[in-house]
Amino acid sequence: MTANSKKRILVQIDPDAHPSVFDSVVAIDSGVEQLLTHGAVSEDDVTGLVHGCIFTRSIDDLRSTALFFGGSNVDRTEALVEKAKSAFFGPMRVSLMSDPNGCNTTAAAAVLSAGKHVSWDGLTVTILAATGPVGIRIAQILAKEADASNETVTIRICSRKLQRAEEVCRRIAVAGADGVTLEPLETAEAKDALPAVDGSDVVFAAGAAGIELLPEGWLEKAPKVVVDVNAVPPAGIHGVEVMDKAETRGETICYGAIGVGGLKMKIHRKCIESLFESNDSVLEVHQIHAIGKTIVG
Amino acid sequence: MTANSKKRILVQIDPDAHPSVFDSVVAIDSGVEQLLTHGAVSEDDVTGLVHGCIFTRSIDDLRSTALFFGGSNVDRTEALVEKAKSAFFGPMRVSLMSDPNGCNTTAAAAVLSAGKHVSWDGLTVTILAATGPVGIRIAQILAKEADASNETVTIRICSRKLQRAEEVCRRIAVAGADGVTLEPLETAEAKDALPAVDGSDVVFAAGAAGIELLPEGWLEKAPKVVVDVNAVPPAGIHGVEVMDKAETRGETICYGAIGVGGLKMKIHRKCIESLFESNDSVLEVHQIHAIGKTIVG
Amino acid sequence: MTANSKKRILVQIDPDAHPSVFDSVVAIDSGVEQLLTHGAVSEDDVTGLVHGCIFTRSIDDLRSTALFFGGSNVDRTEALVEKAKSAFFGPMRVSLMSDPNGCNTTAAAAVLSAGKHVSWDGLTVTILAATGPVGIRIAQILAKEADASNETVTIRICSRKLQRAEEVCRRIAVAGADGVTLEPLETAEAKDALPAVDGSDVVFAAGAAGIELLPEGWLEKAPKVVVDVNAVPPAGIHGVEVMDKAETRGETICYGAIGVGGLKMKIHRKCIESLFESNDSVLEVHQIHAIGKTIVG
Repeated sequence: MTANSKKRILVQIDPDAHPSVFDSVVAIDSGVEQLLTHGAVSEDDVTGLVHGCIFTRSIDDLRSTALFFGGSNVDRTEALVEKAKSAFFGPMRVSLMSDPNGCNTTAAAAVLSAGKHVSWDGLTVTILAATGPVGIRIAQILAKEADASNETVTIRICSRKLQRAEEVCRRIAVAGADGVTLEPLETAEAKDALPAVDGSDVVFAAGAAGIELLPEGWLEKAPKVVVDVNAVPPAGIHGVEVMDKAETRGETICYGAIGVGGLKMKIHRKCIESLFESNDSVLEVHQIHAIGKTIVG
Repeated sequence: MTANSKKRILVQIDPDAHPSVFDSVVAIDSGVEQLLTHGAVSEDDVTGLVHGCIFTRSIDDLRSTALFFGGSNVDRTEALVEKAKSAFFGPMRVSLMSDPNGCNTTAAAAVLSAGKHVSWDGLTVTILAATGPVGIRIAQILAKEADASNETVTIRICSRKLQRAEEVCRRIAVAGADGVTLEPLETAEAKDALPAVDGSDVVFAAGAAGIELLPEGWLEKAPKVVVDVNAVPPAGIHGVEVMDKAETRGETICYGAIGVGGLKMKIHRKCIESLFESNDSVLEVHQIHAIGKTIVG
Repeated sequence: MTANSKKRILVQIDPDAHPSVFDSVVAIDSGVEQLLTHGAVSEDDVTGLVHGCIFTRSIDDLRSTALFFGGSNVDRTEALVEKAKSAFFGPMRVSLMSDPNGCNTTAAAAVLSAGKHVSWDGLTVTILAATGPVGIRIAQILAKEADASNETVTIRICSRKLQRAEEVCRRIAVAGADGVTLEPLETAEAKDALPAVDGSDVVFAAGAAGIELLPEGWLEKAPKVVVDVNAVPPAGIHGVEVMDKAETRGETICYGAIGVGGLKMKIHRKCIESLFESNDSVLEVHQIHAIGKTIVG
């Protein structure tokens, strides 16, 4: 066979007992020809699975094999990703994508959706539930982008506990990124989120399903854009509908979870497709955001 | 991609540790392009698996994703099917088929095989091992069909224990089906089956592998048709061969398990194919029988 | 569908928790169209899996279904293979290949690589770590080939313990193979291997990863060919490089693990392809070697 005739194989690795059907279907719809799903994967299993990828095809053909890491527990998945990276050596590697619980594609889609309506330079952004997987990644993307563009951005990292907000600020601080200000804020109850939104240009509600993070009253603060990633009622932002897609409410452009979801799916698919363009892509939050940027143009 | 270009994905769900290879091969031979097999599935797992089906494609494309439920323990599988149904909402659903241990396709094929030789109206039918998965379904099909056609049928529900036979009669009784008479009978030993067959037009032996349910002597009762679904010697009906397919013995037309098996496979395949014609088929015993009817014409 | 239109299905059975990705990728690259992987398979599971293969297609179509047995523990895999063979009956069978840990394809490739440079008749062959899975199989191939050709060969079976070497000699002795001399030798430490190599024409180092079996000093013994199957440094044979492929060192032609690996992969692929030519192939060590012979010509 020539290099081009090798089937595109995706090895889907998941620490959950049942590898995510969501991830499987998206993979198939992104042109994967043979999907090998492995659930209940522990760190000890990873090296063997990776060796099966890198020792079976010529180096030229390794671009037709790739790894995807999913799972409902982000930390467990990321531990597997680190093991996989350390199992590669030299040119003996395959491309990989990490998107546990969809957190990377969701964060990228949320930032890119809001970015259609604002220029980030000089803005103040509030992230509610900023210490969860999606919230952290939204902050990471914003901080990195501002730094790369020599822009200024103030990011309010809101958590139910101040200490966790402070930890996340330390974790995502970009060394030497003078334009990025990270402000930890405690929003112990939903009503505490109202003052946190005061003076914000953009608000992200990055919380878990079915929890209202921002109660009635925020519309008067007139942020330019709000994005809610919670798909299960009640909405994370009071009054935002799950289908909202650049819907204007008061003076604010609103996005709900499904309104962001279309872009999220496009990003996910394009990432999977791009895995097969080389054998050395490592698609984590920033690379996934970069691919998303090519979609929104 | 256009709607038609989406690959046909079947998610095969099985409570057994190893998802049935039988079901996998039939799925592939029925045009499934990508099979996602999940074994050791418990009720708690189902919602996540179903959401992976319904949240990954546009509503127009959901007809290209479907669910199959198999497994050796019929009750456990049916509990999963009920969970799946409750995980759908509105148009967000995919077609599903339930055929644990082949019980629905086997029952449909058994009834349709016998039906080639008799008109059911006014007949007396004896079902041996009627309280097992296949036996119950044969009775359900006969009762429903008679009711729908305003026909009369007497069904003898035979079990080793009278109490279980009575329970099954109550379970399958169709409200207002005046033409359907369900008679519970105790056939504690094989010899008790001989009087149960007395005066029967059709006899089904729906028992487990390798158990003789109807001993020598039944030929004198001259039923019109007998069908034995047991493929493992000794036969469920004495003297019936596993390959019998409309074989005449005495005055009786006989079917053995393999004689019924060809039709069973055709029904199974056509059901899988039909899953991909819409996104809202629910193929359980009656729908599977209805599809079988279109095959025998 | 006609017989030819049935998809080529390989059921990959593995006692390990995660079915080998290595075996999966090779299967796909060998033309398998639908791969059904089953991990954590125990002996009790095998009959059901095999029945799923043999009861789903017509006998003419059974050539399009096949079984592959892999796994890291050779003994456990071989127990599954024996169960599978006993689950076939008459023409109701599918082709199968057994290659746990690659031991059969590796042994075949090692023997065939050396055989490019020597005629075996009258030679003395030393196998280091001869009691491991690959070593035993190298000896089995050499003994069987010599017997079939009425040739003479002396095989030194080296193990850290003499008793194990003697056991293996008894196990692989071919009844009536007068030309085959099996000599058990104890090589408790690496230095003991030097005298064992004395007077040898061909030396195989068939040990586990990362263990030096033959230390410096062997080059003076000037064997015609040495083959080392260990891919992880240090080499199994001092001074042999993993990439060596008919590399001359001193007066000796040398093969390292990757030097043998290309042929091993070709054998593996051709074996998988050949599974689908009939429904009754049983590819174990000797059949795999025979297929390898057709590759080296």
